[in-house]
Amino acid sequence: MEYSYLNLDYQPDQEKEVLVTYRIRPLQGQSLEAAAEKVAAESSVGTWTPTVTLSDQIFHDLAARIYKINSADNLVQIAYPLGLFELGSLPQLGSGIMGNVFSMKDLEALRVEDIEFPETYINSFSGPAFGTAGIRQLLNIYSRPIIGSIIKPKIGLSPQDNAQLAYVVWSHGVDLVKDDENLTDLPINPFRERVVEVMKKQRLAEQESGQSKVYAFNVTAPVTQMLERGRWVAEAGGRCLMVDLVTTGWSGVQELRRAFPEMIIHGHRAGHSAFTRVPDHGLSMLVVAKMARLAGVDQLHTGTVVGKMEGSESEVVQINQFLSSAWGQQKTVLPIASGGLHPGMVPDLVKVLGLDLIINFGGGIHGHPDGSAAGAEAAQIAVAAVSQGQSIVEAAKTSPALARALDYWSD
Amino acid sequence: MEYSYLNLDYQPDQEKEVLVTYRIRPLQGQSLEAAAEKVAAESSVGTWTPTVTLSDQIFHDLAARIYKINSADNLVQIAYPLGLFELGSLPQLGSGIMGNVFSMKDLEALRVEDIEFPETYINSFSGPAFGTAGIRQLLNIYSRPIIGSIIKPKIGLSPQDNAQLAYVVWSHGVDLVKDDENLTDLPINPFRERVVEVMKKQRLAEQESGQSKVYAFNVTAPVTQMLERGRWVAEAGGRCLMVDLVTTGWSGVQELRRAFPEMIIHGHRAGHSAFTRVPDHGLSMLVVAKMARLAGVDQLHTGTVVGKMEGSESEVVQINQFLSSAWGQQKTVLPIASGGLHPGMVPDLVKVLGLDLIINFGGGIHGHPDGSAAGAEAAQIAVAAVSQGQSIVEAAKTSPALARALDYWSD
Repeated sequence: MEYSYLNLDYQPDQEKEVLVTYRIRPLQGQSLEAAAEKVAAESSVGTWTPTVTLSDQIFHDLAARIYKINSADNLVQIAYPLGLFELGSLPQLGSGIMGNVFSMKDLEALRVEDIEFPETYINSFSGPAFGTAGIRQLLNIYSRPIIGSIIKPKIGLSPQDNAQLAYVVWSHGVDLVKDDENLTDLPINPFRERVVEVMKKQRLAEQESGQSKVYAFNVTAPVTQMLERGRWVAEAGGRCLMVDLVTTGWSGVQELRRAFPEMIIHGHRAGHSAFTRVPDHGLSMLVVAKMARLAGVDQLHTGTVVGKMEGSESEVVQINQFLSSAWGQQKTVLPIASGGLHPGMVPDLVKVLGLDLIINFGGGIHGHPDGSAAGAEAAQIAVAAVSQGQSIVEAAKTSPALARALDYWSD
Repeated sequence: MEYSYLNLDYQPDQEKEVLVTYRIRPLQGQSLEAAAEKVAAESSVGTWTPTVTLSDQIFHDLAARIYKINSADNLVQIAYPLGLFELGSLPQLGSGIMGNVFSMKDLEALRVEDIEFPETYINSFSGPAFGTAGIRQLLNIYSRPIIGSIIKPKIGLSPQDNAQLAYVVWSHGVDLVKDDENLTDLPINPFRERVVEVMKKQRLAEQESGQSKVYAFNVTAPVTQMLERGRWVAEAGGRCLMVDLVTTGWSGVQELRRAFPEMIIHGHRAGHSAFTRVPDHGLSMLVVAKMARLAGVDQLHTGTVVGKMEGSESEVVQINQFLSSAWGQQKTVLPIASGGLHPGMVPDLVKVLGLDLIINFGGGIHGHPDGSAAGAEAAQIAVAAVSQGQSIVEAAKTSPALARALDYWSD
């Protein structure tokens, strides 16, 4: 028997169903409705041909329902009964509603634009351990963005040089220093040695400044190595683990949160644009952000609007608003703006994204013509000025480091 | 100081460098060379602005080299020194050369078409435990494709009904039965109960047929749950774990291989088309297949050419050839054709993809108008006939089940 998944009179139940908004490009000459039927079948209980083993009861209990179609924008909304989902599992969520549907010959392209989850589902995940409030409390910084810096070059420094460079920028106003995405455990900079050297310098910088400092150690690796490295960081007194969410995968990211409930998880997103960048295919970054919050990431790269990476203003604003909104029992997530930023961009960045932000400078500190110390100072003064409603041009009058930065990156 | 990564006289060293072929769509009005420079910098030791901390020595030792540019096809080949890579880590590989490069505003689109690895790198991974030879030996099937069947509906059957359905198709010629991609541990079909029920029926089917049978249990989940489920399967005498590679992620997949060196890993790829389908962006499926082989997958879904899922003939043939080729010390991987297949497609499938194949039928067995037993029989007779060089039309003369299948799916 052939079932239809289309029911535009259907009233979805937000308490008991997962609601997915897909953007679907149908095959030439085919209707959006027909493509939506195939998607709803493939992602719930159907397949390409009717099966004798699919009963009315199963269909009634577990089939997806297409409840809204907006042909003007190719948007289709589908309700999935909670019985189709394993609580607390992002891999299973992906396999169900973000799996085979991308491959179907019955459509040209498909994008998962948004997902709304019932509270039961949201609360079945660990979620962030710190959230924005916890991170601000740890650092004792409440009224300005947190200043981050990425070690540059990405790969090439020894553990000692890496630690010394962290010390220099910490000493000049940076709060959080991080590994770059491709620096893990490498011959030129072995992970464990880096932890030892960096933590020595972190303690020194904290003593001298009277400020808490944080280093995000990149534990991205196969799970056994990832957990071992996390333990090294914890044993050395570190507070933050960085993980590349996309290249590690949700199974490993959830395990990292499970294993380290006392650690800040810094969520890097290298690779996301392989599936978020093409406008009508793949996933939206908003969906990735929702999954990251479920997985338990405390800090998430969400875009800069003004920097080197792609991502529109409206998209980044929407994601950052979601991350700071109430969502079941889950804590908020602190957004990170990172990629191609320099001090001159701080006013625009704060204007668009607000103060609840980590602003990461890599080249924008270590590319300062007078060196990393001057770069850190310029960033710190720019952030302080903007947070107090002052102009950076004004602030630069008493800071040669900032003046030089504004002049150097003035294109 | 500004460095250039372009050196078209450079002779790459296949023993010491990872060679990546990118397809890059430059920004309008910009050259392919300029975009390639940005990619090489971002994926090795550079960033958007020169940094004072990047020394000549680091650049000399670790910078990527663009050694070939084919403007007609927008292809760029880049050599990366092995010192940039952590041995045995797919997440780190992804973060380095398949990470930020997809996001760069300096280009319109980027696709990783192929990667060639030095033997040292290849051999640093576990690789498949069985390979094609090991799987054929276990099943004692040497001269025909292995016949697989997916339980349908995807979700909806109880553990008992699921086991009984597996028994029916095993008893009618199917070798391997598998969970569908979204069936993990669900209220309607709890994982552990499914293992117990299925393994009872597997032993019965094996006793009655005198043939080894296999069930691929879908362990896709956060790592702790995935490993627990793997242990349940091992304890019950199961031989095969199925994992959704993309939605689980490489960190978890590598952990699964590490934890279960005696298990066949069945690699499902639900979700890959989110980043493989758009022709000039993301990754090629060939690259995913290479990563799956490194990770230790024994069986991999690679496409059907003739079925419901997208994937061209030349692409699938190229991937299957790679999986069966010599590659360092790594065993081969048995390709799986799955998605929208029915018995009438077997001749074309074998003609294009050969006999070293698992042919998976879901709807093509459970959608048979006379039921799953007839469906299995039709599939088995079609595969046997084609493997012996006979016509399925001829074979259908003595098999009403096959005749009915050919008639029913005759479009």
